[in-house]
Amino acid sequence: MRQGRSRHSDTPSLKTDHYELTMLQAALASGVAHRRAVFELFTRRLPSGRRYGVVAGIGRALEAVADFRFDDAQIAFLRENAVVDTPTLDYLAAYRFTGSIHTYREGELFFPQSPIVTVEGTFGEAVLLETLLLSILNHDSAVASAASRMVTAAAGASIIEMGSRRTGDEAAVVAARATYVAGFGATSNLEAGYRYGIPTTGTAAHAFTLAHDSEPEAFAAQVASLGAGTTLLVDTYDIPTGIRNAVAAGGTSLGGIRIDSGDLYVETTRARALLDELGATSTKIVVSSDLDEYVIDDLVSQGAPIDGYGIGTRVVTGSGAPTASMVYKLVEIEGPDGQMRPVAKKSADKASVGGFKDATRVLDAHGVAVAELAVPRAAGTATNHPAGTTTRDLQVTYVRDGKIADLPTLDEVRAHHRAALAELPPSALDVVAGTPYLTARS
Amino acid sequence: MRQGRSRHSDTPSLKTDHYELTMLQAALASGVAHRRAVFELFTRRLPSGRRYGVVAGIGRALEAVADFRFDDAQIAFLRENAVVDTPTLDYLAAYRFTGSIHTYREGELFFPQSPIVTVEGTFGEAVLLETLLLSILNHDSAVASAASRMVTAAAGASIIEMGSRRTGDEAAVVAARATYVAGFGATSNLEAGYRYGIPTTGTAAHAFTLAHDSEPEAFAAQVASLGAGTTLLVDTYDIPTGIRNAVAAGGTSLGGIRIDSGDLYVETTRARALLDELGATSTKIVVSSDLDEYVIDDLVSQGAPIDGYGIGTRVVTGSGAPTASMVYKLVEIEGPDGQMRPVAKKSADKASVGGFKDATRVLDAHGVAVAELAVPRAAGTATNHPAGTTTRDLQVTYVRDGKIADLPTLDEVRAHHRAALAELPPSALDVVAGTPYLTARS
Repeated sequence: MRQGRSRHSDTPSLKTDHYELTMLQAALASGVAHRRAVFELFTRRLPSGRRYGVVAGIGRALEAVADFRFDDAQIAFLRENAVVDTPTLDYLAAYRFTGSIHTYREGELFFPQSPIVTVEGTFGEAVLLETLLLSILNHDSAVASAASRMVTAAAGASIIEMGSRRTGDEAAVVAARATYVAGFGATSNLEAGYRYGIPTTGTAAHAFTLAHDSEPEAFAAQVASLGAGTTLLVDTYDIPTGIRNAVAAGGTSLGGIRIDSGDLYVETTRARALLDELGATSTKIVVSSDLDEYVIDDLVSQGAPIDGYGIGTRVVTGSGAPTASMVYKLVEIEGPDGQMRPVAKKSADKASVGGFKDATRVLDAHGVAVAELAVPRAAGTATNHPAGTTTRDLQVTYVRDGKIADLPTLDEVRAHHRAALAELPPSALDVVAGTPYLTARS
Repeated sequence: MRQGRSRHSDTPSLKTDHYELTMLQAALASGVAHRRAVFELFTRRLPSGRRYGVVAGIGRALEAVADFRFDDAQIAFLRENAVVDTPTLDYLAAYRFTGSIHTYREGELFFPQSPIVTVEGTFGEAVLLETLLLSILNHDSAVASAASRMVTAAAGASIIEMGSRRTGDEAAVVAARATYVAGFGATSNLEAGYRYGIPTTGTAAHAFTLAHDSEPEAFAAQVASLGAGTTLLVDTYDIPTGIRNAVAAGGTSLGGIRIDSGDLYVETTRARALLDELGATSTKIVVSSDLDEYVIDDLVSQGAPIDGYGIGTRVVTGSGAPTASMVYKLVEIEGPDGQMRPVAKKSADKASVGGFKDATRVLDAHGVAVAELAVPRAAGTATNHPAGTTTRDLQVTYVRDGKIADLPTLDEVRAHHRAALAELPPSALDVVAGTPYLTARS
């Protein structure tokens, strides 16, 4: 038999782990599936050297919850492969999430132990969401967390995400979304434009120059077709010659040049001098080539005359931390007496804190974040805060009794990220390695 | 305005970079779009320490080529956003790939400079495929390359892929496929089962135990519903107590126990002794918790009594190398005289070799790979091989004049990977860091 065309599910509900369904089967049989439960999605640590993380993927995750249902083809697959028994298949066929979901805003900062997402529902309905919620938030937050640092490093220069080719074909689309949440200005990925309305842009590849009979012919063709505002890639052969050819083709009002190789400080400094000498004083210099927050920070510190950065591999792979290490843990369960009780795993290296937690960020009189509190409701009394401090609630109830509220637009999400970042002191924004600026505590 | 539901494209053709389309526009205007061209997909290097890479994603890539067309909604999006001009939109609306594609087999090994994929077509039709081919092959090959080393390290023990929660929701599905190509036995991801027919499996989470009133009740519920062949997670509270509870629930024919925390050599050694003492001599021990090829190699070297490994984060993120760094470069273009000429970028740090290359692996008299040749056709004469060696052709023409051939099944792909791996000497299979075992040369 030959490999046929793959059939893709029409809903996201099978993007889950086999064991979620077998646990559901056993819990339906024991009755525990119908107990009220609270799950919390959080991380125990930030990637090495990071001072904060950025929540991304909330909009995608809630859309996935809304679409989380099992159609006939999926039920047939589960039956044919004997994944679960008939009562469980009946439960799945009727599945709709009927509980509530409280989350940190998309674009919000998070720290170790921040209760980023809290899911209330029956054990059965809430356990099924584990894998999908984690997949979306771990990926998107990893990318956004790296992207936010790059935006800070770029100190106001524009940044374009162009890493599609270095991550999975679908991951590329959602990575573009995550970088936009964190403040990137545009993406090269057209599907991200189609799907999320993110601005798309691009320059040209070396292949374009190589396919023409000479660099001047290639540049002339590009300018003729795309206008003098285009950005010409000048490093296919020799950069100074490329710059002269570029200005010859586009004139002194040429939009930009891109340099994709070499020592970028040296090359851009020489390029700026040559462009100015040729009269192309407004022509912008864009660079690419394995950039990340560290390289950008170096270039900015050296005063390299760079107007824009194109970032690929390093941002879509989370700049060394491709996953945010978030976990989804049961923190409360209804007992046989009908009362909710906090629960927590006891093992030494993976302990967790039980109970539904209310999260706030504490700000000092200057509006600087000085603490994050995640207080189990069962603890009862409110924490006293030092005089002069204020608090900001971190959780929003986007799903109540199965109904999903309107979500903020991506532009609102971007604005929220900027506002949350503005609450950190400068030291927390340094790209040099540091420890988490805060840790949520009760 | 609120964030609405996202609309997803019905074809993969917008999973491409903006600049592919603007280059096409300029090349249509200059006439270069209609020149015959050859692009090569290869990598200049392997991730640090790796001795070989594994080709994965070929089946997915060719399915994407077959589906690569622009529908009305996509054309409308491109028009509304002024991405390209009307002649280019007309070209895209009629786009079908009509060229030929030669690739290494899925499951094949690759080295620096191996011509993994060669695309022949017009410049316009071939340049458009760049981003999508790279996205698929860079991701899938990164995961398969890591997975293959883990299979070797496990020395015959079974391995389950369970990393869905630590990578993007769609990346998770295709990562499962890539690990299966490289020899993993099963995945936790149900959509991978639905879509590709990969076996799915799973155990249980700590939440299941915590949701019941006691560990014995949880284990009894799981065994009652799923049978004594199930695998019980024994480290929610105290491992020895968990093991006693597990055997009490499942009897001495209990299928397995899983340990997800602690020092796995110490814990599994004690667990084996206790299981044997309790008479559960056939009960298997499965471990998880941040495993990778190095941890597995250590456990195997120490003789830890482990029957199966569940691997998550580290395999889906490529064990430190989440992308395979493959690039897609123009290597031949038709000149104004109708003759094909080799082309190559000259920049110092990113040079490439021009020309369509025929690739073979050279095997010695014992069937051990001793060289890889990638000879530009223009070079003409065949290379002489030392006496006693044989060669194996590495490229298969899966697409000829736009027609896609039948592809091997995933089981055939797995078998090919095993066969290709068997051509390497033991030193090349060590998980300890090394340099590329071969580099393709002309």
